[in-house]
Amino acid sequence: MSLKVFNNLTKRKEVFTPLNPPFVGMYVCGPTVSGESHLGHARPFITFDVIYRYLLFLGYKVRYVRNITDAGHFEEEGRAAEDKISSKAQLEKLEPMELVQKYTNLFHDAMAAFNNLPPSIEPTATGHIVEQIELTKKIIEAGYAYEINGSVYFNVKKYHEDFSKRNQPYGILSGRKIEDQIAESRSLQNQDEKREALDFALWKKAPENHIMRWASPWGEGFPGWHIECSAMSTKYLGKKFDIHGGGMDLQFPHHECEIAQSTVCNDVTPASYWLHNNMITINGKKMGKSYNNVIKLSELFHGNHPLLNKSYSPQTVRFFILQSQYRSTLDFSNDSLLAAEKALKRLTETYIWLQNFESFNYTTLIIPEGLPNYNEQILKAVNNFKSCLDEDFNTAKLLAEVFEILPILNAVKDKNLKIEYLQPEVLILLKKSFKDYLKDILGLDFKYPTDNHYLKNALDLLINLRMSAKKNKDFVTTDTIRQELSKIGIIIKDEKDGGISYSFNTI
Amino acid sequence: MSLKVFNNLTKRKEVFTPLNPPFVGMYVCGPTVSGESHLGHARPFITFDVIYRYLLFLGYKVRYVRNITDAGHFEEEGRAAEDKISSKAQLEKLEPMELVQKYTNLFHDAMAAFNNLPPSIEPTATGHIVEQIELTKKIIEAGYAYEINGSVYFNVKKYHEDFSKRNQPYGILSGRKIEDQIAESRSLQNQDEKREALDFALWKKAPENHIMRWASPWGEGFPGWHIECSAMSTKYLGKKFDIHGGGMDLQFPHHECEIAQSTVCNDVTPASYWLHNNMITINGKKMGKSYNNVIKLSELFHGNHPLLNKSYSPQTVRFFILQSQYRSTLDFSNDSLLAAEKALKRLTETYIWLQNFESFNYTTLIIPEGLPNYNEQILKAVNNFKSCLDEDFNTAKLLAEVFEILPILNAVKDKNLKIEYLQPEVLILLKKSFKDYLKDILGLDFKYPTDNHYLKNALDLLINLRMSAKKNKDFVTTDTIRQELSKIGIIIKDEKDGGISYSFNTI
Repeated sequence: MSLKVFNNLTKRKEVFTPLNPPFVGMYVCGPTVSGESHLGHARPFITFDVIYRYLLFLGYKVRYVRNITDAGHFEEEGRAAEDKISSKAQLEKLEPMELVQKYTNLFHDAMAAFNNLPPSIEPTATGHIVEQIELTKKIIEAGYAYEINGSVYFNVKKYHEDFSKRNQPYGILSGRKIEDQIAESRSLQNQDEKREALDFALWKKAPENHIMRWASPWGEGFPGWHIECSAMSTKYLGKKFDIHGGGMDLQFPHHECEIAQSTVCNDVTPASYWLHNNMITINGKKMGKSYNNVIKLSELFHGNHPLLNKSYSPQTVRFFILQSQYRSTLDFSNDSLLAAEKALKRLTETYIWLQNFESFNYTTLIIPEGLPNYNEQILKAVNNFKSCLDEDFNTAKLLAEVFEILPILNAVKDKNLKIEYLQPEVLILLKKSFKDYLKDILGLDFKYPTDNHYLKNALDLLINLRMSAKKNKDFVTTDTIRQELSKIGIIIKDEKDGGISYSFNTI
Repeated sequence: MSLKVFNNLTKRKEVFTPLNPPFVGMYVCGPTVSGESHLGHARPFITFDVIYRYLLFLGYKVRYVRNITDAGHFEEEGRAAEDKISSKAQLEKLEPMELVQKYTNLFHDAMAAFNNLPPSIEPTATGHIVEQIELTKKIIEAGYAYEINGSVYFNVKKYHEDFSKRNQPYGILSGRKIEDQIAESRSLQNQDEKREALDFALWKKAPENHIMRWASPWGEGFPGWHIECSAMSTKYLGKKFDIHGGGMDLQFPHHECEIAQSTVCNDVTPASYWLHNNMITINGKKMGKSYNNVIKLSELFHGNHPLLNKSYSPQTVRFFILQSQYRSTLDFSNDSLLAAEKALKRLTETYIWLQNFESFNYTTLIIPEGLPNYNEQILKAVNNFKSCLDEDFNTAKLLAEVFEILPILNAVKDKNLKIEYLQPEVLILLKKSFKDYLKDILGLDFKYPTDNHYLKNALDLLINLRMSAKKNKDFVTTDTIRQELSKIGIIIKDEKDGGISYSFNTI
């Protein structure tokens, strides 16, 4: 079995073949830090975190580069050009980099809360001005960009004409036809200085009141948005690397422009595999300012947004996102998040029970006729874990396999099924597979309140006191302990074997 | 009372007068991220964190800039030039920026563990290549730098000759005499391409195997160390700003060179006040590789270093550092850290008791003759808190004032002294002052295990069970609870009033 990925460049599922195994280079477009991270930031970075983790699990030596867009960029596609970062900065009367720092810190906090691993390198656009200027110079020299009034634009039409002959048309990734777009953009009554509305900025002259500016061969200005990713991916991963990732919305124009820039400079399409996660919706609607439904991550974690009934933990959100394959659309709603929270709670309890289970030295009993073959069921599921992820990182299918066998494990855990019906080897394999796939690859952080050493011991003591009280028929004490713990969400359960167990009502 | 700071530029304690109140600009030299942070990184960043916090407390709007040196720099002072970062990178066979990312992440983790606030802007040297090139060009144009073989050097002698006439000699900060230094450096048989051994690099041509390199007007190379701080402080704080900070070891040559560069470019000494924290020693010896006594912060926190008997928490280290005024030398040893740990534990217990104390509606009793006037003692101490910090941030004196009155508070807390001897207004003032000065300004993070909601309630339940057992003369249960909790470091104490309290043996 080998890993297959859906390559958006070829629109096919392909066997993943790195250029220089065991090394893998992966570039993922990071956040624009002109505001607080919102729900739209959760999916791509969790998706590519799992991809990163799975590639590491497979033994690849991965260099994972995820940039920070802090230089401000233009909204393309006909909307008025607007430097997002510096306009917001003026509003808050802050130095742009102070704003950048604040939102970068918040972004990092959110990524840590999601349990995303830090990328190998997290380069910033402002940190690579020299590289972007050099690339722009190269594109001008090659004849695919022109300077006008201190700005530099990429000549899309010329690129398309020349590179179509080599089967590398502009539109190679998105499938858009350039002819349609020229017609479309003409109707917008373009008043730009650009020769064609489709041309995009590599370097932009800074207006007088523009705070973010750097010296360049074309005067003071700042880089366009697309050029930063070409500059940074080339610098850290080389002219051609393995995986380029990002959200579906970045396919056009951002990734299309990146391909054009890099192809001119390096004579090769920059990445072998182009992976895009699909978009999220909220209660069935596209998320956006115009829909008034942008949920910031802090609002999600604290539950203070009109669309939310309650708060949802970062791990619930992570689990919820992984319940869908990354190329499916995904709808956020209170009901679906609540269901995910409940399912994660069940999984957490089983996971912790299994990881703490240690006495595998029992003799297996034969499963009575009429009962299903639990061992076979478990083995079948476990053997499917890898193939789920090998099929374009299908985390949804992997979790379905896990939940398929959860009832068996819970029956054993809750002593409704004899553990002797399971073969120790099967349980040992399952324990390791759960750790590998759920904790290490899916990155689910099964933290339990009893990770607190004091609490664990205090609860053990309370359980022991209750057992003694029960033995002495001191029902006042047994009731007090049960009731008081119940008040704070710790549920005491009297087991059939006379023991007492506890569980947490909310995690 | 107004804030006075010791200005190393004038070697005098001066009243702090910002250039544009209420704004304050402060630049502090940050870490070189070519390795893991060590004990030497703890003191400057905790010192300037407290200074930042105090300025904020005084109502200033502070922009605090602390850089990250990630471009590699040269060891000056006659030692062989060595780009620290890229040499280590080759050793570990990593892309330098991958190493930079790893150590930057570790540095941030350590800063968070110390409870240091993040600076307003944390710019990187590699992120400001354009600015450094522009400054270098400006210095060449002004006639104070020369290019040779693709490198650019600052002409120290010429600067000294010209600027001495304006009372801005090279050596203005460190007090070093340039004539002595020229004589000293000549004897080293300088084989450099520089005209004078004292000259320092603004830009360095990259040798063929040098990975970190950028395009420049002088060919591919990389910036010198000193120029980055001039470039970044000017960019974010302006030509002249209020405070420049760093460790005493940076005074020469780093800050001296910074002053020379900035003075040439901006015609003004860059900062009004130059603040330097003194050095630390370990068991009386200077810390250094040659002494084999460099303690990494992770080793300190986990206790795995031959010089450490045990681990010390980041808060213990913070508290220990603040027990000295920042301009005193400070010796780390097991004994002194143990003493700090013990003192912090006492302070924490009192602090938490006081912050949780709420019933101020009692009638004050007259203190019997023969007993000291506790109210007066407390008021005297509290009134001194501000003047301690106003005297060049004397955290040592502030903590001494706190510990002066701690016995009174502990006597009340432990019910050895009637609370009615204290005036409620005095206690209310003290509660607020402790929060302001200890938590907000000194940044001591008084976290207690009982911040865990479950644990707090579980312990309360155990205490109640023990009270009932005591009443019922069930000494088996009372002993069990005391002994079992003692095993995990929770100490039960029977109070005189019949109540039971608990405390944690280790925090």
